[in-house]
Amino acid sequence: MTTPAPPRGFTTEDYAARMARVVEQAVEAGLDGVVVAPGPDLVWLTGYQPTAITERLTLLSLVPGARPTMVVPILERPDAEAAPGAPAVALRDWTDGSDPYRTASGFLEDGGRYGISDAAWAAHLLGLQHVLPAASFDGLGRCLPMLRAVKGADELERLDAAGAAADATYREIVEVPFEGRLETEVAADLARLLREHGHEQVDFTVVGSGPNGANPHHEAGDRRIQHGDAVVLDFGGLMYGYGSDTTRTVTVGEPSPEVQEVHDVVRAAQQAAFAAVRPGVPCQEIDRVARGVITEAGYGEQFIHRTGHGIGVTTHEPPYMVEGEEQPLRTGMCFSIEPGIYLTGRFGVRIEDIVTVTDEGGRRLNNTDHRLHVVV
Amino acid sequence: MTTPAPPRGFTTEDYAARMARVVEQAVEAGLDGVVVAPGPDLVWLTGYQPTAITERLTLLSLVPGARPTMVVPILERPDAEAAPGAPAVALRDWTDGSDPYRTASGFLEDGGRYGISDAAWAAHLLGLQHVLPAASFDGLGRCLPMLRAVKGADELERLDAAGAAADATYREIVEVPFEGRLETEVAADLARLLREHGHEQVDFTVVGSGPNGANPHHEAGDRRIQHGDAVVLDFGGLMYGYGSDTTRTVTVGEPSPEVQEVHDVVRAAQQAAFAAVRPGVPCQEIDRVARGVITEAGYGEQFIHRTGHGIGVTTHEPPYMVEGEEQPLRTGMCFSIEPGIYLTGRFGVRIEDIVTVTDEGGRRLNNTDHRLHVVV
Repeated sequence: MTTPAPPRGFTTEDYAARMARVVEQAVEAGLDGVVVAPGPDLVWLTGYQPTAITERLTLLSLVPGARPTMVVPILERPDAEAAPGAPAVALRDWTDGSDPYRTASGFLEDGGRYGISDAAWAAHLLGLQHVLPAASFDGLGRCLPMLRAVKGADELERLDAAGAAADATYREIVEVPFEGRLETEVAADLARLLREHGHEQVDFTVVGSGPNGANPHHEAGDRRIQHGDAVVLDFGGLMYGYGSDTTRTVTVGEPSPEVQEVHDVVRAAQQAAFAAVRPGVPCQEIDRVARGVITEAGYGEQFIHRTGHGIGVTTHEPPYMVEGEEQPLRTGMCFSIEPGIYLTGRFGVRIEDIVTVTDEGGRRLNNTDHRLHVVV
Repeated sequence: MTTPAPPRGFTTEDYAARMARVVEQAVEAGLDGVVVAPGPDLVWLTGYQPTAITERLTLLSLVPGARPTMVVPILERPDAEAAPGAPAVALRDWTDGSDPYRTASGFLEDGGRYGISDAAWAAHLLGLQHVLPAASFDGLGRCLPMLRAVKGADELERLDAAGAAADATYREIVEVPFEGRLETEVAADLARLLREHGHEQVDFTVVGSGPNGANPHHEAGDRRIQHGDAVVLDFGGLMYGYGSDTTRTVTVGEPSPEVQEVHDVVRAAQQAAFAAVRPGVPCQEIDRVARGVITEAGYGEQFIHRTGHGIGVTTHEPPYMVEGEEQPLRTGMCFSIEPGIYLTGRFGVRIEDIVTVTDEGGRRLNNTDHRLHVVV
């Protein structure tokens, strides 16, 4: 299978525009700026990903009226300089034995209010709180939760490609033998297929057969798949730096009436939630719609997770489709819709598509059949 | 090559003893307890490593007089229950939509003083600070830096095995061809050899040839290795859950007089620092000794990193051999001694061994020849 030509790489100007937009959003949110530690936010803002995330401070400061500035350990400076967004950033290096928090605090105001990457190390936040005792910090997931949530056309192009590759993987995985093989063997097939279809990184290949399917966080184990099993297949990773994540549940041989019934309920819940997607609808409404269908059918207690999560440079990010999340959906957001029913000790069923919001409603980035597929 | 029989696995009792010891150390350090997020500390204390570290709170609380308690997302509970240390921990699950910080704070006191994992997410620390406004937190790297630094005999057994496997890898890598091959090809050989010699995880395979050797954080690139190059080889990973990390510098063909001179200086610095190891010596003294030799030879400005770092369930942890680290060495500590000289645009030289502290002085866990080795 051939994959389409790779998208144009992001340019320094693309990164500069993102940084400028974040500063604007920060000001609108009443913040004096944003500090960003290595991780997805930094990748998205600068294209920079240090070899390892360590106790050595790397921190990008974005404040209004100043050039973006990044504090880096001196021995990581060459790597930082090589990042595509680096020309838009002033680099300030520090040497082992000096106080990097003091250096970083030079770009911030004591008494200021700053957003900080959710996944920044607690030790780094404590270091900043120590040198800026009057400053206040708030996790970006709380104060600017939708920072990366609305995708641009250049990002959607990548998410579409990742979704198409995941779909191609599903179409081939249902042709491999299941019965008598280990979950880990089918998982290895999934990983191989994702790579063959263009993924540069495989993040998860869940194969939850029989009772293992009833644990939504089961990955793949040494259980041998049996005739009659329902098998949850949940897989994804990164392609061109953007994520895929899709789930289908198959059965080995014809499904029992109970598996078919549970599958019908999950499928109806997924479809109802998808149909509810349009700009302005609160995220929690998507969860309520899916949960409503499942509760109505008597399985509410067996749907033990939220309905969805955002996806972008990570496979797991805001917006979350969960009770209490009142943020409205906006055109360009991308997230999973993945209701499930888990019958402990017996089997589980989940169906998941990535969906993006358009002005007219939802558009699926995964388009394989939702009907229960029988494998051998 | 055969590897020795694997060590006995850690038991629930081993983990319970570690947790009890941490509580004791916390009290001695004037803390009211310790909170531990997923990562190396949690692995070391419980054997539990969630599939992914996410925005969903998992937090182990260790306070005097109470059973260790771990808050986990309900859908990760089965995984947590399966951890070897879990029987010694009370698990408290929480469901999407509820406030996990409120749940976690039930095991802590507002106004208390707690150590927190350095790598805990900032968002989680902020969540705890919000529900416990009068509590104070300090990074474990600062308040209990030596938490995992002194290794028990069962840990040293694993570190010895990892070191021996790294040595076996070095002895074989100098037999492969270098000249005309890409750095990434030699790096792939290193990774293969580490796995063949028993590593379950390869963390880094640095091949810094010619000018790339002068960037201490260079990994391996598409540079073709040339006759006359000095090549820095720095590789390691995990074996039985414990780390290896060793560096040797080789030359392709006979070394130039300058490379030989620089190598002699680095070798003398490494040996002098090793000879300074004994219980009671401050960590910074190891750095000073290595730096002194290199500065004396006129290369002080070209030694741009600290002399060493601890190693255990990670390949990079306290104790750090760096100016300002006044903690005394103690019997059972394990760390790298890895001085280097980096001549920008030309070449670099580094020599690194893992060393453990015994009552009599240092003992190397890496024992391959320090002389400059010529490869083809």
